[in-house]
Amino acid sequence: MKTVADERFMRLAINEAIKGGAADEVPVGAVVVKDGKVIARAHNEKEKRNCALYHAEILAIRRAAKKLGNWYLEGCTLYVTLEPCVMCVGAIVNSRLDRVVYGAADPRFGFLGSVADIPRDYPTNHVFEKETGVLGEECGALLTEFFRKKRAKR
Amino acid sequence: MKTVADERFMRLAINEAIKGGAADEVPVGAVVVKDGKVIARAHNEKEKRNCALYHAEILAIRRAAKKLGNWYLEGCTLYVTLEPCVMCVGAIVNSRLDRVVYGAADPRFGFLGSVADIPRDYPTNHVFEKETGVLGEECGALLTEFFRKKRAKR
Repeated sequence: MKTVADERFMRLAINEAIKGGAADEVPVGAVVVKDGKVIARAHNEKEKRNCALYHAEILAIRRAAKKLGNWYLEGCTLYVTLEPCVMCVGAIVNSRLDRVVYGAADPRFGFLGSVADIPRDYPTNHVFEKETGVLGEECGALLTEFFRKKRAKR
Repeated sequence: MKTVADERFMRLAINEAIKGGAADEVPVGAVVVKDGKVIARAHNEKEKRNCALYHAEILAIRRAAKKLGNWYLEGCTLYVTLEPCVMCVGAIVNSRLDRVVYGAADPRFGFLGSVADIPRDYPTNHVFEKETGVLGEECGALLTEFFRKKRAKR
């Protein structure tokens, strides 16, 4: 169920995505929220760190675990502008987040409803609540615009 | 196709798993090999780092990318003592490794043949060669023994 706070926190994730885009990263942003407070923010840093693991979700989860001093992210919600890939869905399961809210669906690489829905299609050891399409058009437009500019430069 | 070198490199991954177990981590180890040389070694460090993302595969991939100065791990093989979980399979796809060799199958959480076989069951953007069961009994015995001791302590 969507909450009134969902758009507010997604807007913070969008701000992160914009920061990523300004640094020439694919503009995806994420925040982790616990008890109504943001405990971690991140954007995609794959190019900066030269490592395919540094998606926004991974960095946000890592920062949240560090902040709480606990790998077990019970009571936490992850807001992310794009539907998570298979790696990030696995990271969410492993870290036991309570809830994931995403903006734009990813029909090619999204494993939380598009290509597959891992926690629902398979017997994983953790099931979490999900909410989709929060500010989805805005989240998707950031990506469309980023790739349009990239193509125009070539 | 299994190569003569596979057992040799898996033995190095087993050594890593043993180091992990000695540090009270679930004993899973991994190495990344390129052109016949080990370029990264890692064991599970979830407890030490208090973060569910630090599986052996994730750390080995991160170290390999750092070593090569490139996120694109073309020409690399990952050896890991246990079948990768869904997060680690995603990390392998995202990092474009050529080949993955694992030891013991994981019927509960393995997403490279057991619960599912992600790169074969879905249209992902990268398909890699896989080899299973290399020193599998030895790899599995490390885990069985670790959990047996844990239970005995309780």
